[in-house]
Amino acid sequence: MLFERITSEGLAHYSYLIGDGQEATVIDPRRDVEVYLEVAYRRGMRIACAVETHRHEDFVSGSVELAARTGAAIVRSGDLAYYGRPVQEGESLSVGALRLQALHTPGHTPGHMSYLLHDAQGAPWALFSGDALLADEVGRVDLFGAGRTEELAAQLYDSLFYRIRPLGDSLLLCPAHGAGSPCGAAIADRPWTTIGLERQLNPRLQYTRRTEFVGAMTQPLEYPPYFRTMDRLNKDGPPVLGQLPAPRPLTPREVAVQADRAQVLDTRMVTGFAAAHIPGALSIWEAGVPGFAGWFLSYERPILLVVEGDDVSGAVRHLIRLGLDRIEGYLSGGMLSWHKAGLESAHTDTVTVQELCRRLDHGEPVWILDVRSASELLEEGRIPGAHHIHVTQLPGRLGEVPRDVPVYIFCGSGLRSMIAASLLERAGWQRVNVVLGGFAGWRSARFPIETAEAVPVPVAAKAAGPADLR
Amino acid sequence: MLFERITSEGLAHYSYLIGDGQEATVIDPRRDVEVYLEVAYRRGMRIACAVETHRHEDFVSGSVELAARTGAAIVRSGDLAYYGRPVQEGESLSVGALRLQALHTPGHTPGHMSYLLHDAQGAPWALFSGDALLADEVGRVDLFGAGRTEELAAQLYDSLFYRIRPLGDSLLLCPAHGAGSPCGAAIADRPWTTIGLERQLNPRLQYTRRTEFVGAMTQPLEYPPYFRTMDRLNKDGPPVLGQLPAPRPLTPREVAVQADRAQVLDTRMVTGFAAAHIPGALSIWEAGVPGFAGWFLSYERPILLVVEGDDVSGAVRHLIRLGLDRIEGYLSGGMLSWHKAGLESAHTDTVTVQELCRRLDHGEPVWILDVRSASELLEEGRIPGAHHIHVTQLPGRLGEVPRDVPVYIFCGSGLRSMIAASLLERAGWQRVNVVLGGFAGWRSARFPIETAEAVPVPVAAKAAGPADLR
Amino acid sequence: MLFERITSEGLAHYSYLIGDGQEATVIDPRRDVEVYLEVAYRRGMRIACAVETHRHEDFVSGSVELAARTGAAIVRSGDLAYYGRPVQEGESLSVGALRLQALHTPGHTPGHMSYLLHDAQGAPWALFSGDALLADEVGRVDLFGAGRTEELAAQLYDSLFYRIRPLGDSLLLCPAHGAGSPCGAAIADRPWTTIGLERQLNPRLQYTRRTEFVGAMTQPLEYPPYFRTMDRLNKDGPPVLGQLPAPRPLTPREVAVQADRAQVLDTRMVTGFAAAHIPGALSIWEAGVPGFAGWFLSYERPILLVVEGDDVSGAVRHLIRLGLDRIEGYLSGGMLSWHKAGLESAHTDTVTVQELCRRLDHGEPVWILDVRSASELLEEGRIPGAHHIHVTQLPGRLGEVPRDVPVYIFCGSGLRSMIAASLLERAGWQRVNVVLGGFAGWRSARFPIETAEAVPVPVAAKAAGPADLR
Amino acid sequence: MLFERITSEGLAHYSYLIGDGQEATVIDPRRDVEVYLEVAYRRGMRIACAVETHRHEDFVSGSVELAARTGAAIVRSGDLAYYGRPVQEGESLSVGALRLQALHTPGHTPGHMSYLLHDAQGAPWALFSGDALLADEVGRVDLFGAGRTEELAAQLYDSLFYRIRPLGDSLLLCPAHGAGSPCGAAIADRPWTTIGLERQLNPRLQYTRRTEFVGAMTQPLEYPPYFRTMDRLNKDGPPVLGQLPAPRPLTPREVAVQADRAQVLDTRMVTGFAAAHIPGALSIWEAGVPGFAGWFLSYERPILLVVEGDDVSGAVRHLIRLGLDRIEGYLSGGMLSWHKAGLESAHTDTVTVQELCRRLDHGEPVWILDVRSASELLEEGRIPGAHHIHVTQLPGRLGEVPRDVPVYIFCGSGLRSMIAASLLERAGWQRVNVVLGGFAGWRSARFPIETAEAVPVPVAAKAAGPADLR
Repeated sequence: MLFERITSEGLAHYSYLIGDGQEATVIDPRRDVEVYLEVAYRRGMRIACAVETHRHEDFVSGSVELAARTGAAIVRSGDLAYYGRPVQEGESLSVGALRLQALHTPGHTPGHMSYLLHDAQGAPWALFSGDALLADEVGRVDLFGAGRTEELAAQLYDSLFYRIRPLGDSLLLCPAHGAGSPCGAAIADRPWTTIGLERQLNPRLQYTRRTEFVGAMTQPLEYPPYFRTMDRLNKDGPPVLGQLPAPRPLTPREVAVQADRAQVLDTRMVTGFAAAHIPGALSIWEAGVPGFAGWFLSYERPILLVVEGDDVSGAVRHLIRLGLDRIEGYLSGGMLSWHKAGLESAHTDTVTVQELCRRLDHGEPVWILDVRSASELLEEGRIPGAHHIHVTQLPGRLGEVPRDVPVYIFCGSGLRSMIAASLLERAGWQRVNVVLGGFAGWRSARFPIETAEAVPVPVAAKAAGPADLR
Repeated sequence: MLFERITSEGLAHYSYLIGDGQEATVIDPRRDVEVYLEVAYRRGMRIACAVETHRHEDFVSGSVELAARTGAAIVRSGDLAYYGRPVQEGESLSVGALRLQALHTPGHTPGHMSYLLHDAQGAPWALFSGDALLADEVGRVDLFGAGRTEELAAQLYDSLFYRIRPLGDSLLLCPAHGAGSPCGAAIADRPWTTIGLERQLNPRLQYTRRTEFVGAMTQPLEYPPYFRTMDRLNKDGPPVLGQLPAPRPLTPREVAVQADRAQVLDTRMVTGFAAAHIPGALSIWEAGVPGFAGWFLSYERPILLVVEGDDVSGAVRHLIRLGLDRIEGYLSGGMLSWHKAGLESAHTDTVTVQELCRRLDHGEPVWILDVRSASELLEEGRIPGAHHIHVTQLPGRLGEVPRDVPVYIFCGSGLRSMIAASLLERAGWQRVNVVLGGFAGWRSARFPIETAEAVPVPVAAKAAGPADLR
Repeated sequence: MLFERITSEGLAHYSYLIGDGQEATVIDPRRDVEVYLEVAYRRGMRIACAVETHRHEDFVSGSVELAARTGAAIVRSGDLAYYGRPVQEGESLSVGALRLQALHTPGHTPGHMSYLLHDAQGAPWALFSGDALLADEVGRVDLFGAGRTEELAAQLYDSLFYRIRPLGDSLLLCPAHGAGSPCGAAIADRPWTTIGLERQLNPRLQYTRRTEFVGAMTQPLEYPPYFRTMDRLNKDGPPVLGQLPAPRPLTPREVAVQADRAQVLDTRMVTGFAAAHIPGALSIWEAGVPGFAGWFLSYERPILLVVEGDDVSGAVRHLIRLGLDRIEGYLSGGMLSWHKAGLESAHTDTVTVQELCRRLDHGEPVWILDVRSASELLEEGRIPGAHHIHVTQLPGRLGEVPRDVPVYIFCGSGLRSMIAASLLERAGWQRVNVVLGGFAGWRSARFPIETAEAVPVPVAAKAAGPADLR
Repeated sequence: MLFERITSEGLAHYSYLIGDGQEATVIDPRRDVEVYLEVAYRRGMRIACAVETHRHEDFVSGSVELAARTGAAIVRSGDLAYYGRPVQEGESLSVGALRLQALHTPGHTPGHMSYLLHDAQGAPWALFSGDALLADEVGRVDLFGAGRTEELAAQLYDSLFYRIRPLGDSLLLCPAHGAGSPCGAAIADRPWTTIGLERQLNPRLQYTRRTEFVGAMTQPLEYPPYFRTMDRLNKDGPPVLGQLPAPRPLTPREVAVQADRAQVLDTRMVTGFAAAHIPGALSIWEAGVPGFAGWFLSYERPILLVVEGDDVSGAVRHLIRLGLDRIEGYLSGGMLSWHKAGLESAHTDTVTVQELCRRLDHGEPVWILDVRSASELLEEGRIPGAHHIHVTQLPGRLGEVPRDVPVYIFCGSGLRSMIAASLLERAGWQRVNVVLGGFAGWRSARFPIETAEAVPVPVAAKAAGPADLR
């Protein structure tokens, strides 16, 4: 039996390649499909089928790409789409001698399907649960608007308690997402899990009544605006790429000329960005692109990339997974070539937590902006006197940030702070400081922390990147 | 015939793997010998011999490593060494049906040998000229002290004009170094060359009298102090590594504790270093390590590495090629983890050339330090009012740099400036600025340039890194 | 959390690399340890510990190699060994914030330990069960002689029913072996499993009384003679390799000269071996080396390799995992160079099942030798009139095979038949034929099959290679 | 300066990637263009131009593919083609600061251009000579029919003696082909060469009169029929592939069903093919595909592949370079799966030279067929009594081979003999034997050899594969 889980870092997305004999199937493929082709090829298998658990909202499905490149059939959930064929509840899909049995498990989406894998002897062995059941979490039910949240939560309760849990503790559970995905509020970093482990450990499965479960699910999560674009692409079928795009290398002058009509995305680490960047550039460190590019980049305008050196393949991969295909080129030679061309750059001030403390002690004017999510504040505490705007909300709440006082930005580590700083600078702020090490540094240095009270605002997914990069 | 040239970037070192049948020979191997083993293995050849043209002074020879790992014999020039056997003038070494004929070509070193490769039909085809003849250059003759320069220059003249040139224009010329090596003053970026091309284009071969040639060779080149260590290691035989060392990942606290007795080498790009670094760290961008680590790192004290992230293999490879083997570990997670641990960092101010110009226009106090080499000044011109100390001379001439005026450091691009800045800061300077883009940026922005007059000081090799990284 | 399973093909051996923060631990490492070093390095972790579940008998443990190359501590089961320190029942080993709790689970060996992994929140999550519990199987209990089988089987029962099963259905089960290992009679091809899946599906866990279980475990399995060498090496600690050995390329003449005192192992596919091989060579197709080299190669005599071309790395890796380190070289250029050197080769006749059938129909004299294992016969049936000697038993039962009648050898596919044929030819047999496709081909062609009755002889492990290569 | 030579093994084709700044150009690109994209990408360069020296006849040009994938302009020789633009004599193409100057050097083709590369300082440095001048050879002049041979030879003489030789001895010479190409009769294995080395060593440049040169060039070379297809594809522009095709894995039954209407190409080594192959399959060992597939495969019928195992990428790459794009699939699992499916296979008898000698000594009836080329016979001698038909001529001369006597086939090593054997068997011959080791083995065993007299038939190119694989 071929059974391989493919992880897409950043999206925290899991897809699965299963196969038997000469036939393989991919469950919830991503858009850069080379990895499936290579594994199948090495095993002498053809990819006969791409199976979707539901219409994804956080990444562009790779089913259409896979079909275009291998002739695979697309089998999908009942959620509306203009390609593939919808699977029926109870229908069995064969993969060699293996069998995938479709289970309707609505809630995250109305048409959401899970697939129960039976081995060649007919014994059930694993459940591909899509976004219905995740490690320590369940899929969010707020994607179709507040009006349908309760209905979908109730459906999800039934899916979980009457369809999935009865399958028994022993089954391997194979969800579509791991820790760090925005598709669930607080997915755990549990490398593999089982239905039984979730029954015992998953807080969402501890309710004994549907009403309690539904009540707990009404807290809305953040709804990234790019989800709508994902939704549309996954309904219509995204453009076929053929291969990973290779953007053009551009000279500094070419970038300078194009920078106005385009959006410059700089994926270097925050220290490099701090010291010098193209004026107006957006900072998102590379591993943060899957989580944040959709929030802050426009789908309409061309994208220019700045990386450390010339290897933009990582950034490109992340962008096309989000359908951000309009990458027109990158600054060849990086910022070094920019400066050698005698062009102007901007910089962003940074401080360590100690330096900030010194300034506070000296009574310097300081406006502290904490861009962590509400749930992080709740869990980890807050810095006394800090103002809280989650980084994703910043574009809409710029008016709350003063222009005449130095702003000191905190996040978990300093990474997201630089996104915020680059947004403020682009909007004309001039006295912006990023606090290096962020809340982690503040706590490590044993500076004072307050307990945060719960706030009645949409909470973000627990993490938008590997936990240690927050 | 197997004929492969292996380039060691940064050192601009060429070694050659030649073979026939099942037998291969390496000429002037480097210390990280895996590449030879792999190529030979793929071809079904055993490396029977390591051949040295001379005792190298700019890198640790890999002959001993190769012998330890393959049982290869070591055949070397007559220059003193305590291993291998010296080859005789005229002696023929067979490599399958090929033949390497030893030619004594003294000058760069007294015992320097070149090797004339005859193909299987007995026709001469290529000359491995070591450091005797290079593209547009010849090997320096000042390594044995001023007292012997003239004698060695005369020997080199004879080697070039009476031994090498008579071999004819047609032969492929295979030197031990390419552009960027400190073993010749101004080696050209000519990917492959021939004796004829050198006869026509090499300025050193245009002399018609020995005395003129000798006269032109008396200008001393810089003598990096680490050359003595290379020399000793290549005399005694360096320690056998067995494999590329894998330094230990260290936590921020472990690094902080060890930083005092060790030397911290930070190989990130200069912008990252500028924004934040461990106080006291030495900055050498990764590609600059081969050219500068030997100047500024001690062979006695342990080395701790800081890179972008966790991949130190590039830096380690560069260091062990210089015999800098005492690498005790690296900061795992890079500066991000340092700041998350709440530790203090330092930063270095940077300015663009425009900003510097503005400050000059406003009459701000400015002390410009140009750390390019004398030959660069001569070729490219100088910034009006700048003080010149080549970066390699800075540790011995710190007294010339004022502490009470802001210092603005120029090099070609901003890379070497950061080395200088880190040296100054370690010595207590506090108002140090690196000019981003350096002289290239200054020139691109069309700011004024003066012609530099020739200066009677030791000149550096033309470049200590790829030309565009100066 | 770092959690990676490393599969050693052929041995069907699983080792596990787990880590948290900067600390990693390997459970039951193999001897070619590069893979652990690379994964840990990429993650910025140091391997602090190698943990053994028991003293292995089917491969050489990599703990000593890992300790030599990383400084890792060795923690092992109570089974006698002259290195590392024995772990205590109930003892907790920390791996960053993770915790491995030792459970004494004797049976397969008296000192066998399993390790229960608790996640950072303290919840048990996975059990590293070594050879105690495998997919559809349990570890064999006959390794210490018939006299102790019953005692060990009783211990194993208690370990399984009173120590492992009570941990609950939900836990991920991480055994040391998968399908194809000789450490269990009939391990299933279940890529991942749980305690619950085993409780339901594992035939060994269906007994309700200890006596029944013990009774069912008395059927002895084959005891490969090389297990003793493994045992000794794993007691004393095997020699440290430093790196994967790279055997010397040899000319045909060199191989011919050395062939007498050495043993020639030819790992090409059976068709290549059939057409021409060095007289006296042993045939084991590459993927079969882990399962069969230990049976038929001597640890005392040097080994010479013949492969298709020059890439012997796969064969070398398989051999050193078994401690077969005396690899003196390989035939460079393969059999093509042998024949070009004008040397004599031998060949082995092959027939398709159809051709064999035709000969049977024509009444030609035929002696059919079936070298499959007893359990395969039992499961799959037998060819009418075939004589059964399991391939592993052939050297001791040569006397049963006639020399004056053409022998036609069957196995599952034709692979093991060629081992048998090469053994017979080396012993002087001249009229040996390998049946291509073996029993699979016979059955596919719908030729007659008899049901085999159970035989009271030691049964082999279910497979000694991937199922489809039998 | 970027300067990289890319070798396509088998075709013995050299293409060159040169670049400066951010601009790169490929000279005579092959059709699988990934390698150019990767090197350019790593260097931060865009491929702005594909340059052709002439319309190739031995492989499909990659210019159209490169243009489709990168937007590169196509600049080509004046030889008729329906794409790109013809370059003018004397025209300069810039590649960053480098300059390629076009030189009309007709002879191999009427419009053939060479390109003189000037470095950034304007010094000529290398000549890309296409097929005009090769190591020890010149391009053949017989491609346009006997009627034009003399005219083209005269043109070539002028190109060589009046255009190329005057450029001087010192220049690096960069031809489009190395040893083993069918584009020249006897190209030497000289890894790099210069105009001077050719002036001295190249037999074709030793003539002092044009008439002598022309006279020596009238000996026609073999004209592979597939050259016409190459010619047509390179005139019209071949189909764009987008990426390397990945043929479908097929079950034995699927292959068996399709085998009739398709052509089965088996690229395993000859021993594997000898023991068992699909009846009717054509044998060409993998490295021999570039040289022989065009001779024996039809462009009209679909191709099915059989390899050792499942990795057909090497064979596919070779085939598409020849425009043999109709690859419909491959036998997944190789011949092992074929036999396990119970299908019939054929085999080919082999003998060692000793065994053949014994049969000759015993007076057995033997008809020896030597399929080496005429020039090999001339150089190496012949086996007494052997009949000579070059392998490429065999399909048209089958009538000369007896059906009632055992045929023993010789080539250089046994590789080409198997092509011949498979051709005979497909045509119904039943008593065919391949002599393992071929002429090399015969000579190594010191069996008698006769001197061959020159024969007035078309001679083949010197080698159709690496010399040691003949």
